[in-house]
Amino acid sequence: MDSIKSDFQRPDGREFDELRPCRIYPHWTDNPEGSVLIECGGTKVLCTASWEDGVPSWRSGRGLGWVTAEYAMIPRATGSRNARESVAGRNSRSTEISRLVGRALRAAVDFEAMGEQAVYIDCDVLQADGGTRTASVTGAWVALREAADWALRNGKAARDFIKFQVSGVSVGIVEGAEILDLAYMEDSKASTDMNVVQTESGEFVEIQGTGERAPFSSSQLSFLLDLASKGNEELRIKQREALA
Amino acid sequence: MDSIKSDFQRPDGREFDELRPCRIYPHWTDNPEGSVLIECGGTKVLCTASWEDGVPSWRSGRGLGWVTAEYAMIPRATGSRNARESVAGRNSRSTEISRLVGRALRAAVDFEAMGEQAVYIDCDVLQADGGTRTASVTGAWVALREAADWALRNGKAARDFIKFQVSGVSVGIVEGAEILDLAYMEDSKASTDMNVVQTESGEFVEIQGTGERAPFSSSQLSFLLDLASKGNEELRIKQREALA
Amino acid sequence: MDSIKSDFQRPDGREFDELRPCRIYPHWTDNPEGSVLIECGGTKVLCTASWEDGVPSWRSGRGLGWVTAEYAMIPRATGSRNARESVAGRNSRSTEISRLVGRALRAAVDFEAMGEQAVYIDCDVLQADGGTRTASVTGAWVALREAADWALRNGKAARDFIKFQVSGVSVGIVEGAEILDLAYMEDSKASTDMNVVQTESGEFVEIQGTGERAPFSSSQLSFLLDLASKGNEELRIKQREALA
Amino acid sequence: MDSIKSDFQRPDGREFDELRPCRIYPHWTDNPEGSVLIECGGTKVLCTASWEDGVPSWRSGRGLGWVTAEYAMIPRATGSRNARESVAGRNSRSTEISRLVGRALRAAVDFEAMGEQAVYIDCDVLQADGGTRTASVTGAWVALREAADWALRNGKAARDFIKFQVSGVSVGIVEGAEILDLAYMEDSKASTDMNVVQTESGEFVEIQGTGERAPFSSSQLSFLLDLASKGNEELRIKQREALA
Amino acid sequence: MDSIKSDFQRPDGREFDELRPCRIYPHWTDNPEGSVLIECGGTKVLCTASWEDGVPSWRSGRGLGWVTAEYAMIPRATGSRNARESVAGRNSRSTEISRLVGRALRAAVDFEAMGEQAVYIDCDVLQADGGTRTASVTGAWVALREAADWALRNGKAARDFIKFQVSGVSVGIVEGAEILDLAYMEDSKASTDMNVVQTESGEFVEIQGTGERAPFSSSQLSFLLDLASKGNEELRIKQREALA
Amino acid sequence: MDSIKSDFQRPDGREFDELRPCRIYPHWTDNPEGSVLIECGGTKVLCTASWEDGVPSWRSGRGLGWVTAEYAMIPRATGSRNARESVAGRNSRSTEISRLVGRALRAAVDFEAMGEQAVYIDCDVLQADGGTRTASVTGAWVALREAADWALRNGKAARDFIKFQVSGVSVGIVEGAEILDLAYMEDSKASTDMNVVQTESGEFVEIQGTGERAPFSSSQLSFLLDLASKGNEELRIKQREALA
Repeated sequence: MDSIKSDFQRPDGREFDELRPCRIYPHWTDNPEGSVLIECGGTKVLCTASWEDGVPSWRSGRGLGWVTAEYAMIPRATGSRNARESVAGRNSRSTEISRLVGRALRAAVDFEAMGEQAVYIDCDVLQADGGTRTASVTGAWVALREAADWALRNGKAARDFIKFQVSGVSVGIVEGAEILDLAYMEDSKASTDMNVVQTESGEFVEIQGTGERAPFSSSQLSFLLDLASKGNEELRIKQREALA
Repeated sequence: MDSIKSDFQRPDGREFDELRPCRIYPHWTDNPEGSVLIECGGTKVLCTASWEDGVPSWRSGRGLGWVTAEYAMIPRATGSRNARESVAGRNSRSTEISRLVGRALRAAVDFEAMGEQAVYIDCDVLQADGGTRTASVTGAWVALREAADWALRNGKAARDFIKFQVSGVSVGIVEGAEILDLAYMEDSKASTDMNVVQTESGEFVEIQGTGERAPFSSSQLSFLLDLASKGNEELRIKQREALA
Repeated sequence: MDSIKSDFQRPDGREFDELRPCRIYPHWTDNPEGSVLIECGGTKVLCTASWEDGVPSWRSGRGLGWVTAEYAMIPRATGSRNARESVAGRNSRSTEISRLVGRALRAAVDFEAMGEQAVYIDCDVLQADGGTRTASVTGAWVALREAADWALRNGKAARDFIKFQVSGVSVGIVEGAEILDLAYMEDSKASTDMNVVQTESGEFVEIQGTGERAPFSSSQLSFLLDLASKGNEELRIKQREALA
Repeated sequence: MDSIKSDFQRPDGREFDELRPCRIYPHWTDNPEGSVLIECGGTKVLCTASWEDGVPSWRSGRGLGWVTAEYAMIPRATGSRNARESVAGRNSRSTEISRLVGRALRAAVDFEAMGEQAVYIDCDVLQADGGTRTASVTGAWVALREAADWALRNGKAARDFIKFQVSGVSVGIVEGAEILDLAYMEDSKASTDMNVVQTESGEFVEIQGTGERAPFSSSQLSFLLDLASKGNEELRIKQREALA
Repeated sequence: MDSIKSDFQRPDGREFDELRPCRIYPHWTDNPEGSVLIECGGTKVLCTASWEDGVPSWRSGRGLGWVTAEYAMIPRATGSRNARESVAGRNSRSTEISRLVGRALRAAVDFEAMGEQAVYIDCDVLQADGGTRTASVTGAWVALREAADWALRNGKAARDFIKFQVSGVSVGIVEGAEILDLAYMEDSKASTDMNVVQTESGEFVEIQGTGERAPFSSSQLSFLLDLASKGNEELRIKQREALA
Repeated sequence: MDSIKSDFQRPDGREFDELRPCRIYPHWTDNPEGSVLIECGGTKVLCTASWEDGVPSWRSGRGLGWVTAEYAMIPRATGSRNARESVAGRNSRSTEISRLVGRALRAAVDFEAMGEQAVYIDCDVLQADGGTRTASVTGAWVALREAADWALRNGKAARDFIKFQVSGVSVGIVEGAEILDLAYMEDSKASTDMNVVQTESGEFVEIQGTGERAPFSSSQLSFLLDLASKGNEELRIKQREALA
């Protein structure tokens, strides 16, 4: 891919289309049916998947499973301490991201195959350096995969209910340059910020792009989506390696 | 535009690329600096803009203004009654949409020109028939424009702080057909659902697309964005007519 | 009626015993079983009635129906913006008024005839210019009446369960003058403020009078109640016209 | 006073116009500036008055004092245990009564004489047997009086800021009979229930009457208000005795 | 017992090993199955025990009973007014003490003998002068005993389910002196503060000692526990006298 | 130390007076001034220390510093998922433990040396296998030590404000046997459960012992405290090694 737009130098010396080092530690804690620590550069997220027999009451009686997600940061994941949400009240950013992660994972699930059982995903950000929501999607999918394997091994599911891989990555425009996988220092000055969740065939599950600081054009959008496709392709390899 | 994808018939007989009738009533209530009732088909949203001298404390001291938004539904906006949020607790969907509306409007504002003053946008959905979040953006921009005019008339702002029009519209894929401006009956069976906020030159401010029920391809995305561009162009005319 | 007490001139030129123009728009939104927009001068309240099969658990098993109400203002109904209750917490004034509206309507209902079914009334004040709680009662009764008619038409109720009309109006003492239907500017300087809900035969369902700024005598009370009776009689005509 | 309406026999053998034994224990606890335990029959309320220098910020800068009140029940004040409000959330009945007590006391206060200082009244119901809100008003006035005396003795107030006595009593209609000071067993079957707060000259500060179970006529209202006047006159004697 | 440590003079002239006057008023209110007002010096706590058939759902199906407790202060129990917890939110100190009281009482209960029934203890501090949590334990045990007697009399329990007496007392180190039953003035300058709950044979049910201001040694701990044993022995006599 | 009490075999084969393997990873995340991951057997707690200039307003003006702590578990730290506290409300166990950790650390701090600055400790349990509150104390002290070193290096503190080491360990009685450092399987059947925080000279900062299931005697208490002293001595070595 050719960078043609600007001579913005990334603080950590990366190429415009280069992911940060990504490490996915499977089975990181023992209690959950799925448990993954994912590190994308300085971002660390613990993603757990908890199996539960039965589904919430509003969902029951249709023979369908359920997957939902919650996202939160520990108070000092960031540069300065944020009030603990259980003390200060649920924060709207966390709520919004929880919904995104849930939708992204549900796209990958065959709820009929799952039957009336549920997986609760928890993404707890231990260190935040940009891209926490997409790291959560990428890590949570691995945790969900672990939980599905557990269910298959333990007779909870008769057949696999994961339809395909999903992963997420951020892209954005900084000083006119389209770049992949923004670290916090980049994100904080991006004019456009976009999170892209894709399947293993590269189709889109979620696109959330915002040009709050400066609107973006169709051609910029195309370029950003190409970057995202490249990044998600590499992340899917990391996911598979972690599960191997 | 040519529909090539499916022979899905829209319940209300609309063409695939046809907006519902949209009416924008300016100055709908007397107290707010901006107040607009917007109707998009069966969806009715009251959008108010409240001027406040000064900005929140975390924003102060930089000479910049602020715009933020809150979105909510009255309990019986929908087909069955939802618990009142002030009684049952803030709901996560409302929170997510509030953030979207706020970002969309802020994109259109020159905060230096505004000075340390704030506009609080409230979008209260009185009747919901799909597309409430994009109707909120479209209506709220008109209310914001009214408030900016009020500020100019009343010496609160020395020069106009609205940089451009923004409006929002939904697009989606139903039974394989890409369609514009989904009504609730369509939305509830859409495989892909996308909200697109654009400026008056057609650049993108927000794209929120989700393929929770079925991922979408690049070409589908292109088609959807074209539909959205057509819809937003027509909505901008409605906005200007309302303000005339 | 003769005004003998003072030469207070009402800001809008009304006679001491004159209601503001009152308009009641039936079926204002489509989803609820009853839906009414009531305007009393500058006060606008959207009153909806939502039918629900069954009653709350504490009420069940006795063969009796239930009616309850919630009242709230949108943030900018008033001259300056109030924090949204779903964000800032339920406010005590709204709670108090919700209880008043609920009691007023229940007085008009034959719960045996209704059977184990419930109506939830929501009064959302879109613009506040005094008398919002009594406008809520007057409008909500019409919405309840619409819901009862719906229930009769749809076989939910075997016989009518509304025993009589109820409506509410405010009276008060301003600068020594007893007046009917106070607008906000009057209300804010009233020494006595009283809300009176009456049946179609003029009997009392609720009297809430407060002389926080100056106590009132028996004879003042009599005069105020006569004013209220006149006002409620006229409002009952408006209610019937709206339903015609 | 002659009872002419019905041959309802009161469960405790009282005359229709007879108060329950009322005892007011002044200075019941040591910490508050005013502290009163009031017993009206089986109802026991601890009323405290807490002095605070300064007023809430919304009130400051006008040289005026402030009085406000909070009312609550301990969980097992009643026949069966209610969830503790600090655990289950503030209950709407407590909120409504808090507002009544506050208004009733403020009517008796000269806020200019008080200066920018505040009294916080707390009414905690230790045992509930009907009439808790009016017992709260009656007891709280004595606590407020104690606090005012404390302020005069301690140089916090230059002159007395209590304008007159206020007390409250309930009246109601049970099986067609108007009666004074309803115990819980009576209250639970009353068709009309009314709380009346009066000054020492018999003027009205608050009238809150509800005919939720059956509307009441003008003549019934007159009779009830006469009963209330008799009751409040006797309660004012109790208040003065307690302070003697 | 010999005081050897310091010549600290207690403000109220007590010996280092002397309890404050303790009075326990049984059956203080009428509604609860157990109701006790306990006074330990200036500390006054109303302890009620509410019987309920059945146990919370998480406890059911095992044939075992349940006892739990809640502790709170009225706002002006203390020298200056605290925000009411139902308004300001549950406070963490109250939560911690509620848990202590619950554990202390459960230690004394034979849950098999009790069967699937529950007692809810409420300790409401009406006046606070130190030692409120231990006074709560001591008083609550008497209320629990009353409730057990009620259950036996009313056929709710086939046999007694109280295994033994429990009572609580505070000890602490002030200016180097170990003392028993600290009043608020002592508590506020104690370097070590310890609450000790013991059975009727002197065994320990709870020890909560904190040396936040200065750590304490093994020998100091021994001395403090001896003081507590003496105090609890005397309190158990008070408990028995109250029940006689 | 000799075990004389029972022939209870520990599930993991440990001696009665043997700690689980304890590892303390210093500087585990980058943002906080202190950050430690502590593992005690299967228990993993991330302890961060956040420096803040200034103290809470209630503390200010006395020239003294402040240290406080918050403790929480991620939802799936345990064998089955617990509702997230930010969603379901702060849980009382977390509140109680937060207070314990705060007191324990404050005991070790010279607030005059610290000046008007604050450290906020956050203990987030990532995996729970018994002893989470004492692991939190032990780990949090190391994080606090790191933060103090940071403050000394960065000129925030003129001299060291940590007076001594503190660490915590649990002891308990299981099947009659006193044992050190209970794992969850042991804890869940312990009759006595005790948490002991000690200084580097072995003095006590906190003793929290509960015999909810069976009271304990003086001699059992002595034995337990001896075990705790041994355990804390070993943990202090681990703390020093981590900081080396």
